[in-house]
Amino acid sequence: MSGTSSSACRHDSWWRAYLARRLELRSTRDRRASFRGMECSRSQHRIFLHRKRRAALRCLMRSLLPDTPSVAVIGAGAVGAFYGSMLQRYGLPVAYMSATMAKTKYLEVRSPWASYTLPVQCFASSQQMEPADLVIVSIKALPDLDPFALVSPVLKKNGILLLLQNGINQEERYAAHFRRSALRPVILGGLAFTCINRISAKRIDHIDYGMVKIGALHTEQNPLARQVAELFQNAGIQSEFVPKLRRARYEKLLWNAAYNTLSVLLQADTDPIVSNAQTADLSLRIMREIQAVAAAENIKLSNATLRDMLDRTKRMRPYKTSMLLDYEAGRPMEIDIILGEPIRMARKRKIEVPHLQMAHDLLQFYDRRSAINKETHSKKKS
Amino acid sequence: MSGTSSSACRHDSWWRAYLARRLELRSTRDRRASFRGMECSRSQHRIFLHRKRRAALRCLMRSLLPDTPSVAVIGAGAVGAFYGSMLQRYGLPVAYMSATMAKTKYLEVRSPWASYTLPVQCFASSQQMEPADLVIVSIKALPDLDPFALVSPVLKKNGILLLLQNGINQEERYAAHFRRSALRPVILGGLAFTCINRISAKRIDHIDYGMVKIGALHTEQNPLARQVAELFQNAGIQSEFVPKLRRARYEKLLWNAAYNTLSVLLQADTDPIVSNAQTADLSLRIMREIQAVAAAENIKLSNATLRDMLDRTKRMRPYKTSMLLDYEAGRPMEIDIILGEPIRMARKRKIEVPHLQMAHDLLQFYDRRSAINKETHSKKKS
Repeated sequence: MSGTSSSACRHDSWWRAYLARRLELRSTRDRRASFRGMECSRSQHRIFLHRKRRAALRCLMRSLLPDTPSVAVIGAGAVGAFYGSMLQRYGLPVAYMSATMAKTKYLEVRSPWASYTLPVQCFASSQQMEPADLVIVSIKALPDLDPFALVSPVLKKNGILLLLQNGINQEERYAAHFRRSALRPVILGGLAFTCINRISAKRIDHIDYGMVKIGALHTEQNPLARQVAELFQNAGIQSEFVPKLRRARYEKLLWNAAYNTLSVLLQADTDPIVSNAQTADLSLRIMREIQAVAAAENIKLSNATLRDMLDRTKRMRPYKTSMLLDYEAGRPMEIDIILGEPIRMARKRKIEVPHLQMAHDLLQFYDRRSAINKETHSKKKS
Repeated sequence: MSGTSSSACRHDSWWRAYLARRLELRSTRDRRASFRGMECSRSQHRIFLHRKRRAALRCLMRSLLPDTPSVAVIGAGAVGAFYGSMLQRYGLPVAYMSATMAKTKYLEVRSPWASYTLPVQCFASSQQMEPADLVIVSIKALPDLDPFALVSPVLKKNGILLLLQNGINQEERYAAHFRRSALRPVILGGLAFTCINRISAKRIDHIDYGMVKIGALHTEQNPLARQVAELFQNAGIQSEFVPKLRRARYEKLLWNAAYNTLSVLLQADTDPIVSNAQTADLSLRIMREIQAVAAAENIKLSNATLRDMLDRTKRMRPYKTSMLLDYEAGRPMEIDIILGEPIRMARKRKIEVPHLQMAHDLLQFYDRRSAINKETHSKKKS
């Protein structure tokens, strides 16, 4: 396979043209049409239409990810700032867009992996930033927020967009948006399994875990996802390539839908939830509804996977979920992307998801009250 | 009808024997057997087997409820103490069994109906009390509590037991217990729609509402239930006789299952719950599960009834439910009788009640935490 790849690499300029077109033209009909106008021999053409396509694609991916890719972190909350700073420490040029960090000149990171202080380049708006090779989106997935306006200014043509976000259908949403644009980013998804707190604008504490799973929206771009996962590994981040991103998304959604949700409803970290038989069973019943939604699109999450999710949570150290942290700090919670989106998918497919719906309605109520309290509080201040 | 009743009353002694037997012998076969041994003419017998049975029964009921029945209130929380004191103010001899009130000599009641102070006779244990004609049970329906031990000492043979409690299957539970005893009380159910707070051991504030609906477990005892409802009315209590107690219990359960539950889960009084479209809809979905359980025993609660329940709650003044008051005071909540019991009934009949189950599991968690907190707190004190 590697031999094929290296021999294929000899036709470098032709390939680049071919593969750039290939990324631009998604439908087969478009692709066929495009080749008609390209000067290439029949045999050359056949190479790409058969097995060697993969190797060729890998070659493209290499060409898309430079040795020292520039990185932009959009929405440098605790997660974005931490992973961004790890990449920066590895030697990559990283720029951060974050309202909180806008005036920050130095970032202090404490982590079981490494503790360090770094000078950082922060911006309040992505308009002021240069386009980057790798754009990491780590904003909260909140329904009122238009992420595309934030991301577009820092995207290079055919650049890489890595969505380090919760929930499901995020990559699809970005893909739908950029389908009509000339930017055509390669869309990757990242799943962060971590516990990181922002202590202040200048300080991030990474408490535990930290694995990032990376996959591609279109499996043909898997080689690139693998490369980005390797880049993360090289930068000292626990990282893993996932060949089936959507499946991985569903697996994470199982956990988030159950434990993020219950942690807020019960005002508790994971430990008492999973050690109480009734609420542990409740978490399984919530997961079963996500399982049913996934099954409707042929992603089979076995009952053993669900049980394993519960068992692993039992073995974990007591963990305060991101949603509970948000709730306690009076910040909006990611209810829509974790519960609202699977509920909409279930509705389309006529699957009953009473637990998800009930949790959603209760949490929305909490969320609205927090917002009202905040408003009243800020009015009193002014 | 009244003519029939008065003419039938002439055979008084025979009747009493007949009707006492009738109350004792529940099944028709037993009853038939019993008549065989009784000396009565064929025509006399026929009277009771036909229409006049009702009038005869009413006659019995009159004889069972004396003009000035003595009253025992078992578990004089806010509700028991309030209604007990209203009966006492009307002139009936009332004794109270309550741990809180044990040393109380005078009770102060503030109510939109009337405000007054009364000397009260309180006991810490029902063992110290005289048997009463009318025993009002207003203890919380908590699973760890054995109510029969509390009630038995104050029961007269064939006396009246009025269960002023929440939930479903209460009357049935008492009936099952006393089936084997010689006491054979007439079991009535009372549904209190009220908002009463205990301010101190000596003071009760009745805030709003106050209707008591009274019905009999066995419809043949309806005339007695009607009489007790009249007694309450005469004592100045808003009161109503319900011919179908079980149906009324289900109707109250609709409200309790939805709003007691949600008020604790959302830490809110009724107003924000019903004015938010999502949680209002959630309350309807909870009610629909109670509706399904009721339907399984042929009690039809229409969708209009459910909607009406919601609409009436919208029109009500903001109301803090008893469960929320209990939760806030760190007292155990009536989760089992309001949610656990219908869940068990649904399980037997294979009806899905995910909302009830989820609410149940969440509230049990809250309840257990309160208990643990209380224990820790009292340990710290000692």
